[in-house]
Amino acid sequence: MNESETNEAGDWQNTFIDSSQAKQDDETARIVARIQVLRQSIDNIDMAIIALLAERFKTTAQVGVLKAKAGFAPADYHREDYQMDRLRRIAQDAGLDSEIADMYRMFVVSEAKKRHQRIAEAGGDAGVLDVFA
Amino acid sequence: MNESETNEAGDWQNTFIDSSQAKQDDETARIVARIQVLRQSIDNIDMAIIALLAERFKTTAQVGVLKAKAGFAPADYHREDYQMDRLRRIAQDAGLDSEIADMYRMFVVSEAKKRHQRIAEAGGDAGVLDVFA
Repeated sequence: MNESETNEAGDWQNTFIDSSQAKQDDETARIVARIQVLRQSIDNIDMAIIALLAERFKTTAQVGVLKAKAGFAPADYHREDYQMDRLRRIAQDAGLDSEIADMYRMFVVSEAKKRHQRIAEAGGDAGVLDVFA
Repeated sequence: MNESETNEAGDWQNTFIDSSQAKQDDETARIVARIQVLRQSIDNIDMAIIALLAERFKTTAQVGVLKAKAGFAPADYHREDYQMDRLRRIAQDAGLDSEIADMYRMFVVSEAKKRHQRIAEAGGDAGVLDVFA
């Protein structure tokens, strides 16, 4: 699915779903309307997830500051093991591949590292790099 | 931060934060208590995000079925561009690196592919692989 394939076959690989599609026939019109409703839900879910991620990073940053204050190390393997087991279980309960827990972790860890580096580069006190807290 | 470093320096790299830590002194006890409260929030946020991801995959799957029904292609680059611009904007509004939008996308795409393959391997109708919908 890359845009370089935009010959006739390529066009078939890429359907721009909008009102013009709906003009084909009533059944297609119903499907387009339904897709637009579902897409709105996907957009709302994405907004909620991004907002929750922002809160998560604010919270892990606070944990990082407190760990530094107490002279604790950034890593707490017991906590990490607890979180991974819990996330795998929650993912399965939610009907998701339990591997999503590992992917989710990879995701938050890399963003946390980015944030930490950005603060440090800006000359601020990035505190302890606390990727999972 | 790998466990092979578990000599004295290694132990310093890894602090198991629990009630035994709190026994050091009152200030440490206060910090440990605060960290435990923040960790509860992190766990709650993670649970909410996993639940929302499960809803997201259910919704994109419905879009995939509808696209197949109407003979639409899996890809809709206009929708994809719209989503990426929107996610980058939302991430910035939420105080996150706008790159998180790209990472988030990579994350949902790879999980969607896994789900699709799992259904196909189970002999079920995996429908259209609709990674972003």
